[in-house]
Parts: sequence; structure tokens; C-alpha cells
Amino acid sequence: MNRNSKLNASTLRKIAGQEGISFTQLRQGIKTNKIIILGSRQRPTQPLAIGQGLRVKVNANIGTSPDVVSRKNELAKLKAAIEAGADTVMDLSTGGNLDEIRQAILAATTVPVGSVPIYQAAVTARQQHKSLVELKPKDLLQAVRKHLDDGIDFVTIHCGITRKNVQSLLRAKRLTGVVSRGGSLIIEWMRYNRAENPFYEYYDELLAMAKEYRAVVSLGDGLRPGSLHDATDEPQIRELIVIGELVTRAREAGVGAMVEGPGHVPINQIEANVLLEKAICADAPFYVLGPLVTDISCGYDHITSAIGGALAGYYGADFLCYVTPTEHLGLPDPQDVYDGVIASKIAAHAADVAKGDKIAKAWDEKLSRARADMDWGKMIQFCLAPKKAKEILDKNRVKMQEPCTMCGEFCAMKKFQEIIKRKER
Amino acid sequence: MNRNSKLNASTLRKIAGQEGISFTQLRQGIKTNKIIILGSRQRPTQPLAIGQGLRVKVNANIGTSPDVVSRKNELAKLKAAIEAGADTVMDLSTGGNLDEIRQAILAATTVPVGSVPIYQAAVTARQQHKSLVELKPKDLLQAVRKHLDDGIDFVTIHCGITRKNVQSLLRAKRLTGVVSRGGSLIIEWMRYNRAENPFYEYYDELLAMAKEYRAVVSLGDGLRPGSLHDATDEPQIRELIVIGELVTRAREAGVGAMVEGPGHVPINQIEANVLLEKAICADAPFYVLGPLVTDISCGYDHITSAIGGALAGYYGADFLCYVTPTEHLGLPDPQDVYDGVIASKIAAHAADVAKGDKIAKAWDEKLSRARADMDWGKMIQFCLAPKKAKEILDKNRVKMQEPCTMCGEFCAMKKFQEIIKRKER
Repeated sequence: MNRNSKLNASTLRKIAGQEGISFTQLRQGIKTNKIIILGSRQRPTQPLAIGQGLRVKVNANIGTSPDVVSRKNELAKLKAAIEAGADTVMDLSTGGNLDEIRQAILAATTVPVGSVPIYQAAVTARQQHKSLVELKPKDLLQAVRKHLDDGIDFVTIHCGITRKNVQSLLRAKRLTGVVSRGGSLIIEWMRYNRAENPFYEYYDELLAMAKEYRAVVSLGDGLRPGSLHDATDEPQIRELIVIGELVTRAREAGVGAMVEGPGHVPINQIEANVLLEKAICADAPFYVLGPLVTDISCGYDHITSAIGGALAGYYGADFLCYVTPTEHLGLPDPQDVYDGVIASKIAAHAADVAKGDKIAKAWDEKLSRARADMDWGKMIQFCLAPKKAKEILDKNRVKMQEPCTMCGEFCAMKKFQEIIKRKER
Repeated sequence: MNRNSKLNASTLRKIAGQEGISFTQLRQGIKTNKIIILGSRQRPTQPLAIGQGLRVKVNANIGTSPDVVSRKNELAKLKAAIEAGADTVMDLSTGGNLDEIRQAILAATTVPVGSVPIYQAAVTARQQHKSLVELKPKDLLQAVRKHLDDGIDFVTIHCGITRKNVQSLLRAKRLTGVVSRGGSLIIEWMRYNRAENPFYEYYDELLAMAKEYRAVVSLGDGLRPGSLHDATDEPQIRELIVIGELVTRAREAGVGAMVEGPGHVPINQIEANVLLEKAICADAPFYVLGPLVTDISCGYDHITSAIGGALAGYYGADFLCYVTPTEHLGLPDPQDVYDGVIASKIAAHAADVAKGDKIAKAWDEKLSRARADMDWGKMIQFCLAPKKAKEILDKNRVKMQEPCTMCGEFCAMKKFQEIIKRKER
């Protein structure tokens, strides 16, 4: 039985309405597993549909790191993410009291929350002066259960890294090796224990747990490229092929599955990456990180990621993980989180518009109509980031004779409206 | 005789080297008019090549508006633009003493500077308590000469707006009418005087002037769409067809010409817009403003424009005009100019990389190698915006035990390097 069949019809009708598709279309998408619904049994999450024919969604990663720990700060980042319009957040904490932080985040929001449970296992081991590599497979699975029990709606598990794929990785002439934290932890464990990836080996147990909690499994790309040089290489595609098999097994077990994707990908390879995922993973929802279309833009990587995300979304990616301006440099603060979400929302919306989404197109038209009418109030109201737009307008207001200081009396729109009102002499 | 034949071989060799193409290839591009060189006879401009097979270039618009006038501020904006890597700037001043500001900008930089001379005509008329519509065609041409005489390297002239095209515009069901300042001024003049566009009518005189000063004519798109709704509509394409004829006439007159393009264009129409320009205008260099891939992102339009610019560049646009975060809201300050140029540089570079440009790809590899080596000094050095990257790193330094606060001891790259150094047990 499909996990989503537990959702009642009125919830599905509501989702269909929000997405601008029919109830039948949504139900068909869920039935064929091209659409998944996020929403744990444990928590009053607002259910969120992700997949084919739906609006492209945006996730914001928040969470502590070993060097920056503050629950208050994480809650401020959560608030900023939601204010900017994030559809989901992931708590990727690796510093401080992880349980406390995760539970605080879960209590503070109804948007779906994801996590990477292996971080918990690694941090707990560290706090007990042990190493992750000393943990048993059941300890790793226990970390997953802990998160699901708290009400986490989707968990990233790096189960596509098999021993064979690690061999391929070690042979590959990569520039930037492994850039996935979860991936590197798994590989460390596998190498130390000379054993298969425990999440691959005990995948059935993992699926049973996910089913129990009605959680979605997000199949992590531990071998994703960390530079344009490494994009679309053998280890990445080998891992994707294993993930494709795992998608099928998840479906057979009645568990919703989505697939995580790169990373760093040049513009000319984005379409191929989306097509590959859709073909190999039987149209499972594709959740991309970025992709970043160049490596050189530290401090502005949210922009680089918006370029890649917009294209990926246009070609069929369903879910964009944001990147903030501090990516590669440090943990973001609430303003960085806000800016990162807005950049990804622009990408997602631009993709929706380009794919012909009527709700998305109507939004652009409402704003442009307000702009043509020089109705500044409405224009601000229809902005994706009204506060920022108002801030810029207000900053200039002191200098203003005309509403906008950009062209002032030489405003083309105003002039053109005067022209059409006037009769030709 | 081709205007560019005046450039000596050593200059061309230098340009070819910078662009990573052969001297023959550059010369062939110039001969076939697919490449133009910016660099007025009047001024010691650093010559800049734009066109097929070359790096995508970036322009930053600066200049006063009626409400915000400060020469000091404009020079600060110029400095910010150059620091961020702008290849050219345009002085679009419409407030204050235009001559003084333009001359100050020209004196302060060796990058090519462009302008829109009709602004000068309109502002001068205004200052003499007259209207632009009362000026004679020779007054309008005189404004162009004034700019060229000061050493302006390229002038935007909206000569594709013919009476017939205005009729098409008035019939069209546009949401946002005309959004080009120059375009709206020309239309106002034409309607009032019931006459043909003077720049169209006296195009030969215009070309003779451009030739005299070795200036490039940038054929402005006065009818560009100001919203996604209006993209790729009849008036826009009618104007492009006239511009195509004007490109041919410029070439026959030995004048370098480039073509300006939209504007607001959804992702799915960008490729067609580039192909159309290349086909209709015989591969003349294409200079796009944005394009913005959604209308709703006021305050973050530099990001929206980077998405469109990257795609346009990938499909063959040669020159990107930046958009700043204050677009549609007010005049940018130096920080906005910096951020706008960086956003466009990211787009241009991502397009170069995607098209296989070897110099561009090597840059990404150098940065990623430094990243893999955890050589923070080199990583910052190879960043597009080193100051910003260093700022973020320094802000976090106080909290740091590890060089980067993002993952700290859970850095995947570090872990993977330890793994490959270790022998498997």
C-alpha cells in the first residue's frame, strides 16, 4: 500500500488547489510515485507535495556547526527562512546539544523538516570520546529512528555509496574528492570496518522505519561533484545507478523516495543531469543542491546557485536546496539565510513561469500591471521580497521628487502613458 | 574600409592573447563584423573586443538622475564597477551638469565608456525651459557629436523605432508599454512632430560621425519588453528587423555596430531571442540588458538578471548589461553597482565555462585546487570577489577552531583526504 494513501482526500484537494492542478492529476502523480508528500505522522506538519507537474519547491539548510552553536540563532535562521518563503528546512546541526536544537526547530514550525541522521551518530560518538567508525550498524539506524521519532519529515541517507562505488571513486582523477559530509563519514566507516555501507546493507530496515513514521527517504548523493571539473563523472553516475535501484525498492515498500543531485555543474551539463536522474530513477522527484555553475564566486554563491537552480528547475528538477552567500566560507547568519532563500525562490519561480505554470505567470502579470499603473503600494505588495523592496524605496524617498529615483521625470513608462493618452496632432 | 583596420597588429595580438584565440581568428571575426572593437580615436581607451568566440563582456550603467546628482558619487560608482571587473561603463546621466559628469568619468578611466546622447538633448532642452519635441533633427545629431567629441566609445541610438513600428506598438496589447527612456523620448518627438525617427532618417549622417571618431553604434531596443507578458511580441521583433537593416548599412559604411536586446524574457524564450538576433542581424554582437527571467524580484533583480544573462551568454549573447539590486526602485549606490557587476560577471563567466572557454575553465580549476588543498590564501586570491570572500571568512575567524565554520571538524574534504592517505586496514 502506498504511504500517501493515508492522506485524506480533503488534504489532497487542498494541495491540488494550491498547485493549480486537478485532484485526479495529483492522485495519479502520487500513485505513480512521481509525486511525494512530505508530512510525518509524528507532528502536525503542513503536508507538502513535491514532484512532476508541481511548483518547484525550495529548502533552506539551517543548523549549528562545531564552532558556532546557538539555539537562539538557529531559531532566528528558521524564522528568516520561513519569512523568505522556504517550503522546507533541514536541520543539519553538528554542534551543541543536537536533540535540543532539533526539537526546538520542530516545535517552532509546521513546514516539513529534514535532517541527516548520520551527523547525530557522529557527534554523539565524538561527545562520548569515540569515533563514528566504532559504531555498529544498529547504532547508525538508531540515530535515524531518533530523528523520525522526534517528527522529522524526511531524512537524507547516503545509501548509494557501495564498496564498488568507493573503488570507482578512489580510481577517479577528481579535483575535489568528496564534498558531502554524510558521504565522507560513511566512506570513513566503510574503510575502517572493511564492510559494506550499513545503510545500503540494512536498507530494508530503514524503509520499514520510514514507513512506520510516514517519512520520506531522501537518497543522498555522497559522491556528488564539488567542482565543475568533477561534474558528471563516473563515481557520480555509478552512485546514481545504485540510487535508481533503491528508489524501486522504496516504492515496493510503500515509502516515498526522492533523489538528491549535484552540486557543481556547468550550464551545458545541467539538462543531461536532470534527464539522467529522471531516466535512471524512474521519475522520482529530483532534489538538487544548487547546482553551482561556477566555482569562483565565494561570497556570491547564492547567485551562482540561482542560475543553476533555475535551469535545473526548468529542465525538470522538482526541489531546490538553497545555497547562501557564505557557502564554502562559514555558517550563514539569518540575513544570509533570507538572501539564500530569496535567490532560490527566484530560480524556482522563473522555472515555473518558463514551464507555463499559470499561477506563477499570473503573479508576474499582477506585479507588472501594478508597475505600469505606477501603483507603488501594490508593486511592493506583489514583490517576492516586499521588505527589501520597500527598504530601497524608503532609502531614496528623501531625495525624491518622483516616486522612483532611477529615471525621475524621464520615466519611460510615465512618458509612454502620456503619449497614448494624447491624440496625435 | 573597415573601421577596425586602423588598429595596429600588436594591439590585435594582445587582444587575441587575452581572449585565448589566434590572431587570425580575431582578424577574421573583425573582417566579417562578428567582432567589434570598442575604442574611440579621441581618448586613450584600452581597446576591447566583443563578439563571436570571445569572452562574454559586462557593462555597468552609472550616471545621475534628476533627483540624485553627485559627481563624487558617480566617480565612486565608476570605481566600484571597475573594481568588480566591469569591461565597460555607460554614463546614463540625466541630472546635473551632464558635460562635467561625463568628462569626469571619461578622464577617470581607460575602459570604454558608452552613453545615450538623446538624454543630453532632452536634459539640455529642459534646462532651457524647452521640450525635447521642439528640437530639430540637427540638434539631436549635435548631441551625439558632443559625446563623441568628448571621447565616448559607443553610443546607444534608438534608430529602429520607425513610424510603422510605433503603429504596431500602439496596436499591441502590451502590459508595460515602453520601458526604454531613449525609446519613449524618440516616440514622443515623432508623435509631436508627426515625423519619422530623426535617427532613422539621418542614419547616414550618424554613421559618418561614428566613423570619424571610430565609435561603435549600439542599436538600442526602444521597444524592448518591460515584462514577461510583453516578451518576444510583434513590436519587439519588428524593431529588430529594422535594426538588422541598419546593421548592414553600418557595415557598408565601415562602422562597428552592435545590437541591444531585452529586457524581460522568460527562460524558455531566451534561446529564441538570441537566435533571432543572430539570424536577423547577420551575427552582429548582441548586447542584452539582463534579461530578467521574472518580474517579481525587486530588490534582488541582479540575481534574476544573472540567471537570464548566463543563459543568454551560453546561447551566444556577447555582452551583458548589468542590473543592480535597486533596479525598478531607485538609483544604485556604489555597493549596489559592485554587487550588480559581480552578478553579471558570474553570469558571463558561467557562460564562458559552459561554452568550453579554456581560460575560464582553468580559472575554476585553480580555485577548486586551492579549495581541495585547503589553501585559504589562494582560494581567496582566485575568487571573483576576493574582498567579500575575505570579509565573510574574517567575520567568522573569531569563532573558528577550524578554518571554515561551516562544517568545522566535519569537513568532508579534509576527511576524504585523510581517508585516501590512510591504507585500508
